Amino acid sequence: MSIAPVSHPTAARRERLRALLRDRGLDALLVTDLLNIRYLTGFTGSNAALLVSASDGHGAEDHTVIATDGRYLVQVGEQVPDLRAEITRAVVPVLLDRAGAGPIGFESHAVTVDQHAAWSASAPGLVRAPRLVEGLREVKDEAEIELLRRACAVADRALADLIARGGLRPGRTEKEVGRELESLMLDHGADGISFETIVAAGPNSAVPHHRPTGAVLRSGDFVKLDFGAQVGGYHSDMTRTYVLEQAADWQRDVYDVVARAQAAGRAALAPGVPVAAVDAAARTVIDDAGHGELFLHGLGHGVGLEIHEAPGIGALGTGTLLAGAVVTVEPGVYFSGRGGVRIEDTLVVRDQGPELLTLTGKDLTIV
Amino acid sequence: MSIAPVSHPTAARRERLRALLRDRGLDALLVTDLLNIRYLTGFTGSNAALLVSASDGHGAEDHTVIATDGRYLVQVGEQVPDLRAEITRAVVPVLLDRAGAGPIGFESHAVTVDQHAAWSASAPGLVRAPRLVEGLREVKDEAEIELLRRACAVADRALADLIARGGLRPGRTEKEVGRELESLMLDHGADGISFETIVAAGPNSAVPHHRPTGAVLRSGDFVKLDFGAQVGGYHSDMTRTYVLEQAADWQRDVYDVVARAQAAGRAALAPGVPVAAVDAAARTVIDDAGHGELFLHGLGHGVGLEIHEAPGIGALGTGTLLAGAVVTVEPGVYFSGRGGVRIEDTLVVRDQGPELLTLTGKDLTIV
Repeated sequence: MSIAPVSHPTAARRERLRALLRDRGLDALLVTDLLNIRYLTGFTGSNAALLVSASDGHGAEDHTVIATDGRYLVQVGEQVPDLRAEITRAVVPVLLDRAGAGPIGFESHAVTVDQHAAWSASAPGLVRAPRLVEGLREVKDEAEIELLRRACAVADRALADLIARGGLRPGRTEKEVGRELESLMLDHGADGISFETIVAAGPNSAVPHHRPTGAVLRSGDFVKLDFGAQVGGYHSDMTRTYVLEQAADWQRDVYDVVARAQAAGRAALAPGVPVAAVDAAARTVIDDAGHGELFLHGLGHGVGLEIHEAPGIGALGTGTLLAGAVVTVEPGVYFSGRGGVRIEDTLVVRDQGPELLTLTGKDLTIV
Repeated sequence: MSIAPVSHPTAARRERLRALLRDRGLDALLVTDLLNIRYLTGFTGSNAALLVSASDGHGAEDHTVIATDGRYLVQVGEQVPDLRAEITRAVVPVLLDRAGAGPIGFESHAVTVDQHAAWSASAPGLVRAPRLVEGLREVKDEAEIELLRRACAVADRALADLIARGGLRPGRTEKEVGRELESLMLDHGADGISFETIVAAGPNSAVPHHRPTGAVLRSGDFVKLDFGAQVGGYHSDMTRTYVLEQAADWQRDVYDVVARAQAAGRAALAPGVPVAAVDAAARTVIDDAGHGELFLHGLGHGVGLEIHEAPGIGALGTGTLLAGAVVTVEPGVYFSGRGGVRIEDTLVVRDQGPELLTLTGKDLTIV
């Protein structure tokens, strides 16, 4: 009986990259972006380069090499047991010396003019090959989705805790709320926060990316919370908007519009759908309510090893959704000087319908 | 009576840059690194480009222009009242269109190959001009030193608070200590932390850049804390190593060696001194104690808008110190498996002798 080799997800990712290299007639890709190296190998150190050879594959990876420096001698062995590692002070030159005479792609979107000039002297065969790995990263594998699921769950639990302990109440400052929410995410197992938490109360809630201030929460305020947790390098991203103690009619109305727009955007998520059509599905609801000019940004974005990555979901976007993409859906309506509402979930695009990773409820909640 | 114009520090910085441009025969510099734009203008938004014209100066800056997008219309007017601002979606092309036919420098150390290729199509006169602004940033003006002084004071106060409230005690985890110290820095007015706080107890203190874990502090442990606060964009950086409850003789001995090495390094800081000589002043003390092989890193680094910037202070460094440089001095000795000591201050290099910005004491402290 033959046993199929257990393929680590990073090995499968390298195989997908090799198919792209062969399509483009490249002998290899020199990968220098550290997030792309992490994606392709699991290595998390701060200095590395990776040469992925197109001629390797199917378990034989003799010509695919990672290079890092002596600080990471032990770490690279533990994190990348399946590839040959070179320990060197000059990670790129060592890999270029090992490459053959054929065309070698490099990440021209991430390599500086000076780096390229230094490398070209000894490797004139370098060819611009931007965003190949970023293209692969747009479709998440199940190992990635599991980390994103956990990152989203941490944020959900932290928010539930914040509310359960009365963390959202008149008299507190935006900064106090933000720090408590971030602390709760760490308590619930986040490796870190995804980005600086947005807490925006009252009129500040009308500023899409308000930074928390000493502004005091007051009864009747909208309070908008936009935040996320990092788990295993993957980022979650969610927004909820609450009303403190009592909601006015205009607040109920705008909340209802945004919630319906968000539901329409979520429902439009399917493989093959143009991203502009997803944006339009949500935007139409807001337009029809007469608030089209108050929805100031795109509907969403991909999320993964970076908090913002492909695909962008906006009115001017040109691509289509792929099965396995993980994206946010986050419409908002902002009345300058009064307040605003944004509701945001993270979801997986699936053939059988979108899978919500953000599980916190979205009914108007008065806290 | 004529009144001299009050010169904003950013205007004086632009004047210093113009002198560099004239030396190099450049008509202008296209600045795209956001920290460099902040340094030269005060602008803190996330999208901008700046064209500094060599022909401007002495208060007339008609040809020096900042470009940003519509999100920052109000902010750029408030933060950069003294320069013309272009509001555009294409910040670099708009500036290149306005530039003359002469040679325009660009920041080739920070611009990617793809960006450069896109710009070159319409601006073939672009000339590599790396690190001009970084060179200026190596010498801090008094406005910058004041922000660094405040950032160092925040860290000093947070550490004093941590110890006063018994935050360093057996039974706590490294992570708990790190989070409390970070929280105290925010309480004392930090805009953020400088970098992920290092808390390393017992054997972990022998790892120079250990990340805090669930490891529990125990009586007799070394506890090494390496941390800093951000104020107004400027970073502080300090390290102290304590002993919990009781110090062994070997701990007193190694602490004494590191403290003497650190004092020797500080005493060597003066304008015109080669950085390698500063490193050697400290390293010799450790060598003479027989621990030379256990001092695994350089002596220090510049600090400012970035946590690590010029000048590097190490055995292989080639430059000399400049008056107004702000640097760390941080020797360490690390006994693998047992523990290590590092002591780090931030100081200003001055003609009349170094000025300490980190004021926490450095005697061996048993907490």
